[in-house]
Amino acid sequence: MIVETFAQFSKMLTNLSNILDKAQKFADQKKFDSVNLMNARLAPDQFNFIRQVQVACDTAKFGAARLTGIDAPKFEDTETTLAELQQRIRNTLEFLSTVKPEAFKGWESKKTLNPRREGKYLPGDEFLMQHAIPNFYFHVATAYSILRHNGVEIGKMDYLGTITYRDL
Amino acid sequence: MIVETFAQFSKMLTNLSNILDKAQKFADQKKFDSVNLMNARLAPDQFNFIRQVQVACDTAKFGAARLTGIDAPKFEDTETTLAELQQRIRNTLEFLSTVKPEAFKGWESKKTLNPRREGKYLPGDEFLMQHAIPNFYFHVATAYSILRHNGVEIGKMDYLGTITYRDL
Repeated sequence: MIVETFAQFSKMLTNLSNILDKAQKFADQKKFDSVNLMNARLAPDQFNFIRQVQVACDTAKFGAARLTGIDAPKFEDTETTLAELQQRIRNTLEFLSTVKPEAFKGWESKKTLNPRREGKYLPGDEFLMQHAIPNFYFHVATAYSILRHNGVEIGKMDYLGTITYRDL
Repeated sequence: MIVETFAQFSKMLTNLSNILDKAQKFADQKKFDSVNLMNARLAPDQFNFIRQVQVACDTAKFGAARLTGIDAPKFEDTETTLAELQQRIRNTLEFLSTVKPEAFKGWESKKTLNPRREGKYLPGDEFLMQHAIPNFYFHVATAYSILRHNGVEIGKMDYLGTITYRDL
């Protein structure tokens, strides 16, 4: 299920990229610069939209890195435009695509470190369940909510993406 | 990992309950009726706060029911107050606590049905990854965002709850 979890993270990031496309179209239709959405937030002491997308990307990236031992590529947090956020998503998807299923061997008991928790660790299974998954969805959903609150025409199907149901 | 996923859903619902307590305290301090938060939403065509909490609960409930074949208890969607939403969360947690780990046997290939998709199914593993998990976190995070946007003093630690790091 670990491989499927990261495949789903990639799917969600692709959905997020499509949502960003809709935000750009909305800005074009309304004739405003999409950069106006970049500092939007739902509360004054909350991460802005740019940071929500950066952290969503990083949660997927560092999740895969910590559970495999593969070094994550460093992405500078310098994005200021929607186009640059799209590139951040593409870079993250590209990294995730290089992480082979077999690299996750033994992930459940791998000691995962967090730079903010010196001298501490979480076993891989607890890290995935309690940290990586809830954080990832939190930042994707919050990025979505910020755009939704600003009038971008998106719905939950944009967030979930295509689900291929089978015939009974 | 299926048992851990539902244990985490229960943890998140407990965190959501604690967040609702903070919303009640906020209302008391500011001297307004907490019922004023119940119809709050981030966009006019979005589910309101009540519905976000109901759907978060139902996504966990139906997720467990569909992956085990156990009948889910029916909860009427009649909540209008914060106290009633707390009861909805408690009822959901109580149901989840009755679902034993062994009930999930064979969950990955179980054909899960969705009343909105007649004649269709999803295999359990795809249902969990593409539907249950993303939807569950979406509605929890959105409920959180609606309160955050309305000034309730909550942060991501309230959403994540306690994570017990180990000493290296």
